[in-house]
Amino acid sequence: MANFDFSKLILVNPCNLDDECYTRAIHASKILDEAKIFQSFEEASKKMDYLVATSSIESQNDKRHLRNAVVLEDFSEKIFEIDGKIGLVFGREDYGLFNEEIAACDMILRIPTSESYLSMNLSHAVSIVLYSLFIKKDFTPKERRTVEKLEKDKLYESFSKLLGAIDYPAHKKEKTEIMFKRMIGRSMPSKWEYHTFMGVLSKSFDRINKKK
Amino acid sequence: MANFDFSKLILVNPCNLDDECYTRAIHASKILDEAKIFQSFEEASKKMDYLVATSSIESQNDKRHLRNAVVLEDFSEKIFEIDGKIGLVFGREDYGLFNEEIAACDMILRIPTSESYLSMNLSHAVSIVLYSLFIKKDFTPKERRTVEKLEKDKLYESFSKLLGAIDYPAHKKEKTEIMFKRMIGRSMPSKWEYHTFMGVLSKSFDRINKKK
Repeated sequence: MANFDFSKLILVNPCNLDDECYTRAIHASKILDEAKIFQSFEEASKKMDYLVATSSIESQNDKRHLRNAVVLEDFSEKIFEIDGKIGLVFGREDYGLFNEEIAACDMILRIPTSESYLSMNLSHAVSIVLYSLFIKKDFTPKERRTVEKLEKDKLYESFSKLLGAIDYPAHKKEKTEIMFKRMIGRSMPSKWEYHTFMGVLSKSFDRINKKK
Repeated sequence: MANFDFSKLILVNPCNLDDECYTRAIHASKILDEAKIFQSFEEASKKMDYLVATSSIESQNDKRHLRNAVVLEDFSEKIFEIDGKIGLVFGREDYGLFNEEIAACDMILRIPTSESYLSMNLSHAVSIVLYSLFIKKDFTPKERRTVEKLEKDKLYESFSKLLGAIDYPAHKKEKTEIMFKRMIGRSMPSKWEYHTFMGVLSKSFDRINKKK
């Protein structure tokens, strides 16, 4: 993190930050000192506007999410268009992220790796992602995009309501909601685009409800 | 290495490859099994056509080499133009590479890092370099370049002879030779370019010697 100018570390239900942690941090102990600790992923991600899950295919039971993953290089170019608080979410060394954690994120990020050895060491994955962002950080997007978590949540809610209105099969609903979230996540829409789309969804919902 | 399809590991005077090494290698123990071990850097690099030193500024007493370093992203694009055996040289976790080791290399590679924390963990440096090469590996250069170590050595020798012929100050000679090596290293010339340049140097040398 210190190598690439990242300073805000959030730990969810971590092990004890003992002497070994500080020894390994070498000159970056400040990051450990200032790390925020939460007991649940939900709590930790509350203040984030944009959550990015990192995942290797191997650590996933369910591959459907990954079909929609964004490759690191593309991500590093596009992410600077977002103005809110972005949380990069890394999973456990052994299991990675659980499906419900991935589902809670706006986007899935994939580091390209060899097909014969997909799963990466956690700290290597972190350093590669941060390196990739660091070398792109001087990239200036044409238009800053500023959509907040609250707005996105409303959009997702509108979509879910629409699914309800069209009597969408209950057993498919969750998957479709996640798909929508992914699409929005990857599209990184501007505030204006969000509101426009929001308008379409709520108008559609109103029309359907009127007819019923 | 396994994550990014690299398989040929050469170790110079390593510690004992004990159980811990294999535990950490997880499913990549084959790389350890097949690693070649040499007692000296010189011996290890004998069969390489192109040696690339990796270095952080901090680990160097002498900064002059680094002024000519190539940044990783540029390196990853250009290196595929070279057809010979390329050795990526990583130094010790604590000291990095010694100056004489860096001097023996054709090129110095720099991973961009924060100015406030330059020095990287060895395994992170390795994974970032290999990742960067992996994502560029499908890059097809217009022209394959095929210069061998022997040819390059002859070119360096010609340059040194020329320095001798022009009575170049002895205390500056080594620095200038290294500078030349760096320039050639970064320029990654084709076989034809090498021979052409070689011709220029040896003709210059001959002319000077004739006049004396």
